[in-house]
Amino acid sequence: MVSFESDYIAGAHPKILERLAETNMESLVGYGEDRYCRMAEEKIKKACNRPDAKVHFLVGGTQTNQVVISSMLADYEGVIAATSGHISVHEGGAIEFSGHKVLALEATDGKLNAGNIDAYVNTFYADGNHEHMVFPGMVYISHPTEYGTLYSKDELAAISAVCRKHNIPLFLDGARLGYGLASRQTDVTLPDIAELCDVFYIGGTKVGALCGEAVVFTHDNAPKHFITKMKQRGALLAKGRLLGIQFDTLFTDNLYMEISHHAIEMAERLKSLLKEKGYRFYLESPTNQQFIILDNAQMAELGKHVCMSFWEKYDDSHTIVRFATSWSTTEEDLRKLEEYL
Amino acid sequence: MVSFESDYIAGAHPKILERLAETNMESLVGYGEDRYCRMAEEKIKKACNRPDAKVHFLVGGTQTNQVVISSMLADYEGVIAATSGHISVHEGGAIEFSGHKVLALEATDGKLNAGNIDAYVNTFYADGNHEHMVFPGMVYISHPTEYGTLYSKDELAAISAVCRKHNIPLFLDGARLGYGLASRQTDVTLPDIAELCDVFYIGGTKVGALCGEAVVFTHDNAPKHFITKMKQRGALLAKGRLLGIQFDTLFTDNLYMEISHHAIEMAERLKSLLKEKGYRFYLESPTNQQFIILDNAQMAELGKHVCMSFWEKYDDSHTIVRFATSWSTTEEDLRKLEEYL
Amino acid sequence: MVSFESDYIAGAHPKILERLAETNMESLVGYGEDRYCRMAEEKIKKACNRPDAKVHFLVGGTQTNQVVISSMLADYEGVIAATSGHISVHEGGAIEFSGHKVLALEATDGKLNAGNIDAYVNTFYADGNHEHMVFPGMVYISHPTEYGTLYSKDELAAISAVCRKHNIPLFLDGARLGYGLASRQTDVTLPDIAELCDVFYIGGTKVGALCGEAVVFTHDNAPKHFITKMKQRGALLAKGRLLGIQFDTLFTDNLYMEISHHAIEMAERLKSLLKEKGYRFYLESPTNQQFIILDNAQMAELGKHVCMSFWEKYDDSHTIVRFATSWSTTEEDLRKLEEYL
Amino acid sequence: MVSFESDYIAGAHPKILERLAETNMESLVGYGEDRYCRMAEEKIKKACNRPDAKVHFLVGGTQTNQVVISSMLADYEGVIAATSGHISVHEGGAIEFSGHKVLALEATDGKLNAGNIDAYVNTFYADGNHEHMVFPGMVYISHPTEYGTLYSKDELAAISAVCRKHNIPLFLDGARLGYGLASRQTDVTLPDIAELCDVFYIGGTKVGALCGEAVVFTHDNAPKHFITKMKQRGALLAKGRLLGIQFDTLFTDNLYMEISHHAIEMAERLKSLLKEKGYRFYLESPTNQQFIILDNAQMAELGKHVCMSFWEKYDDSHTIVRFATSWSTTEEDLRKLEEYL
Repeated sequence: MVSFESDYIAGAHPKILERLAETNMESLVGYGEDRYCRMAEEKIKKACNRPDAKVHFLVGGTQTNQVVISSMLADYEGVIAATSGHISVHEGGAIEFSGHKVLALEATDGKLNAGNIDAYVNTFYADGNHEHMVFPGMVYISHPTEYGTLYSKDELAAISAVCRKHNIPLFLDGARLGYGLASRQTDVTLPDIAELCDVFYIGGTKVGALCGEAVVFTHDNAPKHFITKMKQRGALLAKGRLLGIQFDTLFTDNLYMEISHHAIEMAERLKSLLKEKGYRFYLESPTNQQFIILDNAQMAELGKHVCMSFWEKYDDSHTIVRFATSWSTTEEDLRKLEEYL
Repeated sequence: MVSFESDYIAGAHPKILERLAETNMESLVGYGEDRYCRMAEEKIKKACNRPDAKVHFLVGGTQTNQVVISSMLADYEGVIAATSGHISVHEGGAIEFSGHKVLALEATDGKLNAGNIDAYVNTFYADGNHEHMVFPGMVYISHPTEYGTLYSKDELAAISAVCRKHNIPLFLDGARLGYGLASRQTDVTLPDIAELCDVFYIGGTKVGALCGEAVVFTHDNAPKHFITKMKQRGALLAKGRLLGIQFDTLFTDNLYMEISHHAIEMAERLKSLLKEKGYRFYLESPTNQQFIILDNAQMAELGKHVCMSFWEKYDDSHTIVRFATSWSTTEEDLRKLEEYL
Repeated sequence: MVSFESDYIAGAHPKILERLAETNMESLVGYGEDRYCRMAEEKIKKACNRPDAKVHFLVGGTQTNQVVISSMLADYEGVIAATSGHISVHEGGAIEFSGHKVLALEATDGKLNAGNIDAYVNTFYADGNHEHMVFPGMVYISHPTEYGTLYSKDELAAISAVCRKHNIPLFLDGARLGYGLASRQTDVTLPDIAELCDVFYIGGTKVGALCGEAVVFTHDNAPKHFITKMKQRGALLAKGRLLGIQFDTLFTDNLYMEISHHAIEMAERLKSLLKEKGYRFYLESPTNQQFIILDNAQMAELGKHVCMSFWEKYDDSHTIVRFATSWSTTEEDLRKLEEYL
Repeated sequence: MVSFESDYIAGAHPKILERLAETNMESLVGYGEDRYCRMAEEKIKKACNRPDAKVHFLVGGTQTNQVVISSMLADYEGVIAATSGHISVHEGGAIEFSGHKVLALEATDGKLNAGNIDAYVNTFYADGNHEHMVFPGMVYISHPTEYGTLYSKDELAAISAVCRKHNIPLFLDGARLGYGLASRQTDVTLPDIAELCDVFYIGGTKVGALCGEAVVFTHDNAPKHFITKMKQRGALLAKGRLLGIQFDTLFTDNLYMEISHHAIEMAERLKSLLKEKGYRFYLESPTNQQFIILDNAQMAELGKHVCMSFWEKYDDSHTIVRFATSWSTTEEDLRKLEEYL
């Protein structure tokens, strides 16, 4: 068996385990006030080219989305997201649990469109009855999206401009941010994101860490008493060091980008392999997730040797499956896959 | 000026005011425990032909939707509703405020389709990942819908059957129920609704009362400690008599249906008038709300003499407007309208 | 039988019913935008001597407390209240339902003490760990309290000063405000309250109305999009006229104070009567609620003829009961009571 | 400097880091479905002597309290806890954020008393007005408590009996459970807890793990769709292995108890040392937390060399400080402390 099931099938990058072991017996204060958290914050601010940023560390993606969104919205506001967005579908209603509506907009290949957002907000305010409706209070995008696709710098700038025009923050879910930044088909850099977004997070769980997401408030705009808000939502880790040390390691010697490039290299070879063998792609993805349409018999056969992720039904006899590479994917994994295909 | 702006532009039916005056100085216990509430409950149960029903009185529609839905759902569940449903759009996120997601399904003329609901629930359970998603825990329909349309008895029975198959309750928002029951084009009776739904409400605010909605749990299925749940949501009226006396009056001597028939009579004459004059209907509505497409200049001109409700933009030069009749609409109102058209 | 069970046993003051009847067929816009709501607002602002106030009308007390408190607190904040405060005990957890903690402080005869509030807030901020605690974000007091007692002007000014020193709003629950203002033992006027509080409400339900509470934000400090917040909490009445007309009537020709004085006159005579007959008072109340300690046999006997309210167990053989007068109490009621005592 | 500031100042027990490294490159499914989670569950069930238990792994204590309490309560219910309980004071209102009230009862040295709980519940149901109040729906106790104290087996059995009499679950917060079980002054075993409680958790964060708490539902009573509830609260860890491997290690070869005994040994020597030197104890604690009253000058001086935790003001010139030992405390730490005292 070989697994391309997800990008969180392995533990952590070995350098992270090493650093955890090296620092293990140091006495450190809790709740993210330790020096590793501060060092990681400084390195991230530098990588983002934002001296006025503030960085907080959370444990997982759904938690981060819930904490950030519900901390930044007024109670009469909801968050605009793609109908296929992670918060719209796959987080068990975590945003609604915190009292807010997800205002779902149609998306193409997982991506929102600046014009559609603008039209939505304009229509909202033009409606004489809008005081009886949920105000659009934030835009949430994923980059890469849930389908592995990416916004171009122009697309991102256009969405950012719409948000700033309407004075609502732009939040970018970067659970797989490394794989977006390392893509061969992107013109978007980390400083671009930090400039165009009001808040975003740098995913650790899927990019080399045991767990952890680094939330970046890009311009002195962290919500007041954010620590209390994290605590109140059960999201403040006692041993903050676990997150600080991991992100400090990932942002030392370019490790985060290095392992992201590796995953993309593996993804590109996976794509070539699948194309060579004549597999049909559901869409063109420039990142580490590849979506293939298999007929159901073929899927059953391949499933005996290869773990992949059932995505959705395509039609009665076909299924969309996802192959994901990650920092942990090896050449041996690809060799085995080739054999089974 | 004459107003067709909504079905809540007037106070209460005169008989209600009379009864409030007659009973005014009686000493009555609070919180819905008084004898008028109990009398109203008995009359409603009889009208519904459900001796095993339980009736509670609430003040308004959004409140009722929030209290009923959040009281009946488990926390991991959301409510299926039409994208155009009142809870989906025009209640300021009241359902999300209570922690639950509205699972919006496409609708036709405001109506959900049994097959679509069934497909949605089947797809949900077929998804290997559904434990990460919001469970469908209730179906919400409006009857009449927000577009004035009605479910046929067959359509309602089909939706009911889907709900019972999946063991999720069917909730009918009857804010304008009288106007649905009195329509010339319906085969649905109050006992039908009581049999096919698990919970529904009989709208008072828009059908002759100063305020008030009567929630009917149809088969001994009121949530445990519903009074406490009402209190907790700020929805338990101290002087419950205000609601009890109104519904007792509405359900005495067939008043509720009588005034509903009057509104329908007025609506039918309004329709004829608009048709005669060549106005274009947005859709065919068999109840008290009529939707007309006006060009914007025409709308401005007519607006000098007639209050109507801006509904939504039709295209750049046309607007959909709503004319509503109600128990309080008079022949004189129609005569004036004819003059201005 | 004669009833002193509560101050909401009767309907509405006859002038209110008259005005409802007179205005009944007027076409009015909904949701509190009608001219009666605006007239009532102007009269209340004038009575408060606050041209910069904003008035909103809600239906009941628990609803008002929930809407006001949850609309004004940041999510990391709770509300300071007496352990005996209505929101602490008798609202089914409505504040917690909206996500906020009630920070209960010990009280004397239902009253908070400025020094205790100050000490609480100082201790909070002195605690090195306070970022892990609920921030004190508002002070809630009842006037009259749940025990019928009143703050003196000095006491109220002292609490107000503490609140302003710490920059947290003071909210006064005036469900029975009329009976406080009309007391023979008060030096607090409506303009005093409007000056010393940031928000308060003028109770209607218990002072002559069918239902309704008038919330006064005293200095241009109504929360942004308060209408949407009301809607979202199910608290925006469609026929706002019902509230506007009632408060317009109550604030015309001094009716609110006149009927409050009547209730106090009745309460004073009730007190004299009870004292004459040798009944034991639980505490000295200067308003319409009187608390008497009865032995349980006496209570059972008296209960055959007089409705009163069981308050709490005093000891194994005695019970505290409440007698309440109101605008609707008559001399005949007192005469009957005298007979039964 | 030497630190006795808390029991979470160090990383993880070295065996845990070893196991994380050994298993690091194994492909495992996510979300707690991996074999290490299942192995850990089996070992915990065995240690608890409860074959019918169900174990779930969460990341931290506040999160666990929020998820367990809000998952098990009906919406009209609150949780009984000591006024000094962690959920009452130091979790930023996490329980209220989830919509529920903490019903705080007076406690002695952090401990609730069975008789008081019983009286509280009896009084609640005896109150004629209890439908307007928050129902007691669970009892929460900490063992050890926030003051390091322990319930005896008899005390625990008495509380359990009260809960079962009233049919409300007993939840034990075991954030420091190991240190309670290893105390020299306890007669309570892990199987006792599993028998007497309905749900409890075995703390990892403070007892050798990087993070993690193992929730044990003791008798087939895990809430329906608990995984979805965790997800909805942002509490479902993608790499569940991180928790599974840690608890599997802690429950292999008695490691959890072994390191707990070490902490207690260190605590007993700390106590002896402090007593020898004439320090004054705030209370007698049989576990790893020791509370000492220092005069403020003494505290400042000692603070130059020793990290300890400011607990609360004792009087104007004295402060209560806490010294905590843990699995990571060394003889060298004690030797240094002796020097500084």
